[in-house]
Amino acid sequence: MSHLYLSKLVSNNQPANMKQAFHCLLFVIEGQNTNKFDVIFCIHFCFRKVMNGTGYLHRPSSVGILACELYIPSLYVDQSALETYDNVSKGKYTIGLGQQRMSICSDHEDICSLCLTVLSRLLDETGVHPQQIGRLDVGTETLIDKAKSIKTVLMQLFVDHNNTAVEGADNINACYGGTAAIFNAIHWIESSFWDGRYAVVVMGDIAVYAKGNARPTGGAGACALLIGPNAPVVFESGCRATHMAHVYDFYKPNLNSLYPVVDGHLSVQCFTSALDTCYTQFCTKSQMNHESHTHTHTSTLTSREVNLSTFAAVLFHTPYVRLAQKSLARLYLNDLIRACPYIANATTEKYKNLDIRTLVNDKDLERDLIEQSKELFEQKTLPGLYFSQNMGNMYTPSLYYSLFAFLISQPTEEQLYGRRILLFSYGSGLASSMYSVVCRKVHECRFTLAQLQRSIQRARNRLDNERTELTPDLLDKLLLEREENDHAVPFIPKQPNETLKAGDIYLKSIDKNHRRYYDKFIANDNSERNDDNAKPIQQLYTEYFRNRQTSSDTNE
Amino acid sequence: MSHLYLSKLVSNNQPANMKQAFHCLLFVIEGQNTNKFDVIFCIHFCFRKVMNGTGYLHRPSSVGILACELYIPSLYVDQSALETYDNVSKGKYTIGLGQQRMSICSDHEDICSLCLTVLSRLLDETGVHPQQIGRLDVGTETLIDKAKSIKTVLMQLFVDHNNTAVEGADNINACYGGTAAIFNAIHWIESSFWDGRYAVVVMGDIAVYAKGNARPTGGAGACALLIGPNAPVVFESGCRATHMAHVYDFYKPNLNSLYPVVDGHLSVQCFTSALDTCYTQFCTKSQMNHESHTHTHTSTLTSREVNLSTFAAVLFHTPYVRLAQKSLARLYLNDLIRACPYIANATTEKYKNLDIRTLVNDKDLERDLIEQSKELFEQKTLPGLYFSQNMGNMYTPSLYYSLFAFLISQPTEEQLYGRRILLFSYGSGLASSMYSVVCRKVHECRFTLAQLQRSIQRARNRLDNERTELTPDLLDKLLLEREENDHAVPFIPKQPNETLKAGDIYLKSIDKNHRRYYDKFIANDNSERNDDNAKPIQQLYTEYFRNRQTSSDTNE
Repeated sequence: MSHLYLSKLVSNNQPANMKQAFHCLLFVIEGQNTNKFDVIFCIHFCFRKVMNGTGYLHRPSSVGILACELYIPSLYVDQSALETYDNVSKGKYTIGLGQQRMSICSDHEDICSLCLTVLSRLLDETGVHPQQIGRLDVGTETLIDKAKSIKTVLMQLFVDHNNTAVEGADNINACYGGTAAIFNAIHWIESSFWDGRYAVVVMGDIAVYAKGNARPTGGAGACALLIGPNAPVVFESGCRATHMAHVYDFYKPNLNSLYPVVDGHLSVQCFTSALDTCYTQFCTKSQMNHESHTHTHTSTLTSREVNLSTFAAVLFHTPYVRLAQKSLARLYLNDLIRACPYIANATTEKYKNLDIRTLVNDKDLERDLIEQSKELFEQKTLPGLYFSQNMGNMYTPSLYYSLFAFLISQPTEEQLYGRRILLFSYGSGLASSMYSVVCRKVHECRFTLAQLQRSIQRARNRLDNERTELTPDLLDKLLLEREENDHAVPFIPKQPNETLKAGDIYLKSIDKNHRRYYDKFIANDNSERNDDNAKPIQQLYTEYFRNRQTSSDTNE
Repeated sequence: MSHLYLSKLVSNNQPANMKQAFHCLLFVIEGQNTNKFDVIFCIHFCFRKVMNGTGYLHRPSSVGILACELYIPSLYVDQSALETYDNVSKGKYTIGLGQQRMSICSDHEDICSLCLTVLSRLLDETGVHPQQIGRLDVGTETLIDKAKSIKTVLMQLFVDHNNTAVEGADNINACYGGTAAIFNAIHWIESSFWDGRYAVVVMGDIAVYAKGNARPTGGAGACALLIGPNAPVVFESGCRATHMAHVYDFYKPNLNSLYPVVDGHLSVQCFTSALDTCYTQFCTKSQMNHESHTHTHTSTLTSREVNLSTFAAVLFHTPYVRLAQKSLARLYLNDLIRACPYIANATTEKYKNLDIRTLVNDKDLERDLIEQSKELFEQKTLPGLYFSQNMGNMYTPSLYYSLFAFLISQPTEEQLYGRRILLFSYGSGLASSMYSVVCRKVHECRFTLAQLQRSIQRARNRLDNERTELTPDLLDKLLLEREENDHAVPFIPKQPNETLKAGDIYLKSIDKNHRRYYDKFIANDNSERNDDNAKPIQQLYTEYFRNRQTSSDTNE
């Protein structure tokens, strides 16, 4: 049926508001021989018409996260086992870094397979038809091509559904790429170029480090977010703070290497100073909004004084858990110096008139502050660290896994209503932003906080019950093989595929021209795996590497 | 002076519209001890206040290009000399590809130096203070790092001016990255997150190909665009068409190689089919807008029937000039099949009911259509090809150099008023969009069409009068050296620096940790170079490579 004809029908009925548009839609759809796609088209068209009908283009409101899907790699290594294996002091990784487990990817997984999997599951779980997506942005720093974007690889999931009209590309700046992608998706929806459809943001990374000190700070993860108006988790405008600068703290100039170049000391310094700058900017903006009384939207933070007590949760990009604790302590120091009213006068007295910029490398002060802010940390930050602690550094999605963890730390959606969360995104190089989201009860929208919680809880169940532990020596062998295979063509993954789950999209092969092929894994007996089967996978991997060694010995 | 105090003063005067805001600003500024930055701050604050004062957040209108700065590399090779050198048939590059000259970069130039130079010149020429920039987006496919963005490298130009609050990151998808960057900058300005400041988009590429057939399709270029409301070149909403898909037509999977993997035949096919799809979508949307009468903004295209006659210019991403001519012929074929009224009935008759999708590889048809559309091409596309013809493929900025060339093809700004331009952006992999811009006389804005024309004319003068020709054998030697030096560290550029011009920012060195250092070239006698001095540079390069050869022979 001709869309032009449909649009004419809608126009003839002249809907002037949402209610009229609804009735007009019913009239058009019931009276005609329409299919599902016609209906989708009509809804978009009608919506745009009402939105634009006054001559003014009013922005949609409460834009934010409608739904999400998380990737949980099937393999992990235990950090205390790694301590023993690396022959370092007990607690170096588990207490010093605060990490419990680290996710690992097999050779069936690459950055595209992770992104394809979460996007495919998001569409399946939400029932959103690919035609309803008008924008797709990707954030990653696991680059496999200098020109072709991962966004275009994801278009595989749309082409079969006859939708190629999907804006957006890849957003690159270390761990900040995911935040850049979300911001761009939100701005699109608020712009006059929005066509009424949803946006999706996909971000993911496989974080691996060369053998040595940094290896335990690896990890892997990916997530897909459905973005739209009338959302249960809303991005607030008016206070967003940004700090960007040119530094070489962590970067990946060896394009043929899996591993970054890291100046660890500088990176922590940059992170801390970006945190200070963004927090100051954020607080000033909020105060300005309050003074000027200009923002009347609900999704704007206006407060005479913003401090840690303003927020139900305070979450950070988390390369390792201990840095999140230090960061919370750092914000507490900011509040101390500003003598925020939630802190007793006697306590703030000794910090009065200190210049925070001079207090960067004072280890004693840091320890003291961590101790003082312990309760705040346990209340506002720790509930967001469950995934990070058990998966490791995920780079781009790291901050958003913290948001997810916090959302399921409250047993019901009612407990989240009206609660405000402060987020700090950091990508080396460096790019950083601080902003707030607010949780709300949605009206006339099927995407609820409870629905979000259920998606996250499913991921948490996979994390807790469906993973397999590998020994640290297998981690080393796995990463060595990953190094050797990086950009080797042609390539066919050979590691045990028992780790794959029904619905996973995995790397099938790379041909001699570097073209990558993917397939969806169909359920088999493995999908019914339980704890008793955990051992066999570890064994399969042991045997795989033994056979590989033997065959390579034979070849020599 | 405290910004908080200033914002309070502004608020107390309660400006309700732009005129009142202006008087209020004068009052505040005159009465207080303010400096330049206070004034800038006040203007932003006041503007936001008025913008948001009604409770509704109305979008700023007429968002588009306010000013631009183009990069013209100093070196080029002549395509007919290259034909002789490559021993191919006369006219293969000059007529077959339609190219006259190809830009080359010396070892003092890398992607960051190009981007730094145009951004620095844009700020200097427009007099826009770095504090007035709130967003900076970069588009490129000349990647030198998998994590650190070029955006952060550009932050060097802001940090000294005490502005680190600049949103945006790198946008990646082959030649489409620049378009993605522009779209994102525009959406930001139209969003509720806009803080009233300008956006800047910087895009650039150094396009080089392995020795052989594809080498003459190289080139280099970069440009910086100042983006804001009330612009002389406005991006129109409502009709933007997008087509994205997963293909391997041109990509760069060898991360350590300068050169792409190209399936030339497939790439032209993908380009053509993306062009068809976007044009159909664009025309349908415009018709829908017309039928529904919903768009009342001037910056929206509403027309019963859009066809080539709607536009003063029709411009394409231009890897080589001949493809732009073929593309115009292709759009003409679309118009023929649709029997557009500007074409005589007798002509359209034989194309009636043809399915355009089946007409992709018909060479006879293509020749015929190029002949038929010759006049349209000369009128609407050729005026936009001057830079492409004389610089080669510039990847991300290619389409925008076409826009620039068209803007100076009209002698005065009056001749551009109200004229509409159709643009088609294509990036392999693939991502493509078609959209329109409209030229307008601005009111109460110092960024005029005439100003834009002057900037572009300056670049054109550099192109025509300040470049040096290198012989094809020097091109080969230069590219061989570029290959050898790619990612070699430490590195100090050694080629003759006589090609640098005052104000150019050039690569000074790369240290052993891959950290790159840049400097601004200060005027010397070379900046007064004229045609008589052109020969010496060619000679300097000849001697440079002779000495290099000698010293490498000695070392062996």
